[in-house]
Amino acid sequence: MAGLRVGVLGASGYTGGELVRLALGHPEVELAFLGGRDSAGRTLEEVHPHLAGSPAASLRIQPVGDAKDLDLAFLALPHGESSTIAPALLEASVRVIDLAGDFRLPATAYPEWYGFEHPSTAWLEKAVYGLPERFRDQLRGAHLVANPGCFPTPVVLGLAPLLERGLVEGPVVVDGKTGLSGAGRTAGDAASHVATEESIRPYRFPSHQHKPEMEHALALATGIDVRITFAPHLVPAVRGVLTTCYVKASEGTTTEALGSALAEAYEGEPFVRVLPPGAMADTKRVRGSNVVELQASVDPRSGTAAVIGALDNLVKGAAGQAIQNLNLMAGFDETTALPSIGVYP
Amino acid sequence: MAGLRVGVLGASGYTGGELVRLALGHPEVELAFLGGRDSAGRTLEEVHPHLAGSPAASLRIQPVGDAKDLDLAFLALPHGESSTIAPALLEASVRVIDLAGDFRLPATAYPEWYGFEHPSTAWLEKAVYGLPERFRDQLRGAHLVANPGCFPTPVVLGLAPLLERGLVEGPVVVDGKTGLSGAGRTAGDAASHVATEESIRPYRFPSHQHKPEMEHALALATGIDVRITFAPHLVPAVRGVLTTCYVKASEGTTTEALGSALAEAYEGEPFVRVLPPGAMADTKRVRGSNVVELQASVDPRSGTAAVIGALDNLVKGAAGQAIQNLNLMAGFDETTALPSIGVYP
Amino acid sequence: MAGLRVGVLGASGYTGGELVRLALGHPEVELAFLGGRDSAGRTLEEVHPHLAGSPAASLRIQPVGDAKDLDLAFLALPHGESSTIAPALLEASVRVIDLAGDFRLPATAYPEWYGFEHPSTAWLEKAVYGLPERFRDQLRGAHLVANPGCFPTPVVLGLAPLLERGLVEGPVVVDGKTGLSGAGRTAGDAASHVATEESIRPYRFPSHQHKPEMEHALALATGIDVRITFAPHLVPAVRGVLTTCYVKASEGTTTEALGSALAEAYEGEPFVRVLPPGAMADTKRVRGSNVVELQASVDPRSGTAAVIGALDNLVKGAAGQAIQNLNLMAGFDETTALPSIGVYP
Amino acid sequence: MAGLRVGVLGASGYTGGELVRLALGHPEVELAFLGGRDSAGRTLEEVHPHLAGSPAASLRIQPVGDAKDLDLAFLALPHGESSTIAPALLEASVRVIDLAGDFRLPATAYPEWYGFEHPSTAWLEKAVYGLPERFRDQLRGAHLVANPGCFPTPVVLGLAPLLERGLVEGPVVVDGKTGLSGAGRTAGDAASHVATEESIRPYRFPSHQHKPEMEHALALATGIDVRITFAPHLVPAVRGVLTTCYVKASEGTTTEALGSALAEAYEGEPFVRVLPPGAMADTKRVRGSNVVELQASVDPRSGTAAVIGALDNLVKGAAGQAIQNLNLMAGFDETTALPSIGVYP
Repeated sequence: MAGLRVGVLGASGYTGGELVRLALGHPEVELAFLGGRDSAGRTLEEVHPHLAGSPAASLRIQPVGDAKDLDLAFLALPHGESSTIAPALLEASVRVIDLAGDFRLPATAYPEWYGFEHPSTAWLEKAVYGLPERFRDQLRGAHLVANPGCFPTPVVLGLAPLLERGLVEGPVVVDGKTGLSGAGRTAGDAASHVATEESIRPYRFPSHQHKPEMEHALALATGIDVRITFAPHLVPAVRGVLTTCYVKASEGTTTEALGSALAEAYEGEPFVRVLPPGAMADTKRVRGSNVVELQASVDPRSGTAAVIGALDNLVKGAAGQAIQNLNLMAGFDETTALPSIGVYP
Repeated sequence: MAGLRVGVLGASGYTGGELVRLALGHPEVELAFLGGRDSAGRTLEEVHPHLAGSPAASLRIQPVGDAKDLDLAFLALPHGESSTIAPALLEASVRVIDLAGDFRLPATAYPEWYGFEHPSTAWLEKAVYGLPERFRDQLRGAHLVANPGCFPTPVVLGLAPLLERGLVEGPVVVDGKTGLSGAGRTAGDAASHVATEESIRPYRFPSHQHKPEMEHALALATGIDVRITFAPHLVPAVRGVLTTCYVKASEGTTTEALGSALAEAYEGEPFVRVLPPGAMADTKRVRGSNVVELQASVDPRSGTAAVIGALDNLVKGAAGQAIQNLNLMAGFDETTALPSIGVYP
Repeated sequence: MAGLRVGVLGASGYTGGELVRLALGHPEVELAFLGGRDSAGRTLEEVHPHLAGSPAASLRIQPVGDAKDLDLAFLALPHGESSTIAPALLEASVRVIDLAGDFRLPATAYPEWYGFEHPSTAWLEKAVYGLPERFRDQLRGAHLVANPGCFPTPVVLGLAPLLERGLVEGPVVVDGKTGLSGAGRTAGDAASHVATEESIRPYRFPSHQHKPEMEHALALATGIDVRITFAPHLVPAVRGVLTTCYVKASEGTTTEALGSALAEAYEGEPFVRVLPPGAMADTKRVRGSNVVELQASVDPRSGTAAVIGALDNLVKGAAGQAIQNLNLMAGFDETTALPSIGVYP
Repeated sequence: MAGLRVGVLGASGYTGGELVRLALGHPEVELAFLGGRDSAGRTLEEVHPHLAGSPAASLRIQPVGDAKDLDLAFLALPHGESSTIAPALLEASVRVIDLAGDFRLPATAYPEWYGFEHPSTAWLEKAVYGLPERFRDQLRGAHLVANPGCFPTPVVLGLAPLLERGLVEGPVVVDGKTGLSGAGRTAGDAASHVATEESIRPYRFPSHQHKPEMEHALALATGIDVRITFAPHLVPAVRGVLTTCYVKASEGTTTEALGSALAEAYEGEPFVRVLPPGAMADTKRVRGSNVVELQASVDPRSGTAAVIGALDNLVKGAAGQAIQNLNLMAGFDETTALPSIGVYP
């Protein structure tokens, strides 16, 4: 089998490891290159001992800049690196899926939210936002995909159909809860088990970079501008993001109407599960899968709707969604190599 | 030592156990009665093995109805029981601190929020809401105290000073996160470790009974009516409540102004810690203590303020606050037997 | 596709859910019957919401006794039930894999260790112990397989090659550590998150029924009788068993010799990973996979060897090993539908 | 109040923080000096935010070498530092309690187990092993106390009375399980929450330095030499050590005899709780307290006894035991400032 020659740049992090794990189960993908910085020179199994039993175990991580002869590259690098690396790859006809934030926002937003001037605005304008359930057609032919952030994914999927149908009206308050794996592999003492167990704590309010991403992606998806307030919180978990969006329900909007709108919007979608009325989303249930669970209901007293989404931040919130995008870009079945059942409990 | 003769009715639950633990460290309190239902006949150490080393270890739990010769009774019983038991105690001159919801709301709210007609509305009208930092003077002479819920405590403490000073304006969205101990000792399979680890999930939106309590208590505390939307969430922790309140910042309100208002309001309070600018509340830090941590800041783009509070739901959110109320009612130093330093890490 | 018609009796427990999840990914298996007791009448997705997205979601659980027209039945029932149900299935030419303890011990051991007289000793004598790495040939033609317990699996795999080669000599002390999922889905208050977080505790010493299973299986596997002392412990995890076996190293036995023996014994085995010298086993690494990690080393001062194994008790310790046995019994590739890479982190 | 002028050298670690917390609750102790290395110049509340509400919050940490005018110094420094610092303090008549391993072993053992030649063997010979329940008389007049390690404390307390009475006979296998706080505050990626949740793993077998400490302390306590094999394991907890000692029961030794021996040995001891027959030790129950729980039973089939101990490694396993030693050295009531009830759940 020839296969799509794929590289993972930034293979030593959690997202990198998950990309490798999923890619290894993909019948059309050939894992042709692993790139890293500090990890260059080590083998995959040294960096990710849980991959010791895989066929790629002894593959050696190479300097990021040595990537060549690839059909597609996943960039799982720190924010700010992808945008310097992607152009050369793209010009060499390597398709790129960026898992950092480098191609998610308008150019003007980068200084404020990411602290750098965007170095490749021409490519930025061509990037497609990699949320398949909303941008599937554009993704099929895409050369550069901006894989969405873990928080924006459930927020955009949950709100877009409701905004479009006029069932809810901005502004929106998004309260995010996440496990620690989103903080990355070398997150320091604050990410230790000792500091995390029994700790519930907010962080980076009001300046988390997923806020402008939510606003931008919702505008792209619906044509509607909504103002977002976003506060993320860390809770003692490893995988899992749950977002609770609070938004004004339009006059007459009922819980049933919200549920029907979501069900209609995502009918037939393999990775979106709209919960039946009364059911509650649970990050544990989607652990290890590419599924996002959605629920919505109205508090009739206050007229506020709560639109809630749950996913595994390393799968549907990162590596799994990236594989889904690869499948679209390369014309494979969209669900290839992507579990739709979580490893529960 | 004469001592205040105190009874704990509902001694076998987590709150009951914490009341006993704290009462045992109180030099002016004599633990004169332990009452239970299913646990009647068993000793304290059988029901709470961690109390095996205490002087009360072999005290036998008696039927709740056998309480007598007490100066004060803590009622840590299921909602709906306190209101049938309290009147007889009060008429026998036993002061009562109710840790259930039976004396927290106006009579008219009980059918909707608690599912019963209130059986003792005359006493209900005399009940004082047991939030010392806001109702200290009334508590000093009180005979019947409604100990606040775990979620309303940080919400009311955080919002009241800001509403009073006109720095924020309702309505308010309250996003609550809690560990599992608040669900009680026999909470079933959904509270198992297997179902809880890695699980982030909402529950009981929009009908949690702490919502009307927040509205009622804020009105009592400030004279201002605010409409609350409240969504609680379970996260994989044992102790700990963190509440994130989203509310419109008034024109010109800054993060500094919010911080100053809180600092001023709680200057000298032994159990309220207003965090310095930039610091983030953390439930782990107050674990085992009677302290509530508060922080507030404004998102200048959206004009929304986030007012955040963290406490240990079994201490400041239940048993500790009840002891604080006892201290006030009995004229003891308000901090007696109450830790102001958490057991960290 | 015709497919092997498979039933899961006891589908509502954790092991049952895991059997269904793995069977759904098996191209040669048709999930033809789900049986339960209290859960009969409910659909699979009601009982296991994480399976809501699967093709079997709306399959209804039927009374256990209604199983018919099956090629193979997994019995994931409480101890003592399988032995009453299996004979009728076997006589109707349904092959049986029992995940309880009903066919693991000699008949004489049942009264003492399981509290019942074995009702079908003729079948018991025909049962094959389902540890593929040691009894592969017998399993190929087996009609009745006793799937091993979660603790015995790593103990037997770790010790057998070392005993056979005379590198170690009994008796053996086995210290087991396990997460809570092994205790089952309705394990009561002691299995609550509140009672489990921060709790490290022994249980059921010295009377755990996996002790005689270890002795019996080691004798079957090696022909050598060793006396075992076994103390299991609960630690705050969901999945995961780690067994530490302490045994006298024979004169001259080195850590290198132990490692070589294990490596030689399991060369080419897809689900046994012998760790390189100095590496430490980790249950987290094999989570969700059918892999067992083994390590062995000698304390030269005391002459005691520590032989350590780690696995996921629901996969290699239960449902995964059962699928591995099905693959052998039915002549499929032994690794079909079984992950050899854990979902890490 | 005059008070005992006490310093904590190494105040920024977990043990340092716990020493400060307990010392702040001690009516006879004046916290006169906080010393650190990297943390020097910062205030206590910056280093330990949970101590922000304490009277010492704004105390500044000073270079370790600046300690002066103290009556007693706790050394909570990395192994190898105490032995270079202690002599000058002792010569200046400052009593010393060392919480590192620098004064726990014979001089000859240091190169092998700690990697350094002991620099002050004269003082080492005068050090008293700080296990109050066994060396109380020597501790009363001691100037230099070697505070025991977290694993040796329950092992020595559990085994010593049984060895002395001839109820058990060495050698002993000790299987240790511990939470992560024992690894210290800057333990790196392996101590992250992401790497710890769901991870059960051995470490540092057979070379953990608590092994020779157990052997040495048992010999000191009983005059009997026993050979120990020791394998420690990390489990997903913060506080808590549980040790399971496997040892040959002497001919005729029963579970009852073991229980009676322990009960007799520790009658009246405020911090040792011998569990009733059938009860199981639990680290969660002693969390935050200075209590060690002990149990012992015999497996009549194998003739092996399991002697099990549970404690909070930061309290009875470190800071609490150190305060207990201070109380003895200074002639205070031995239980002052030490909780005998855990913060449960």
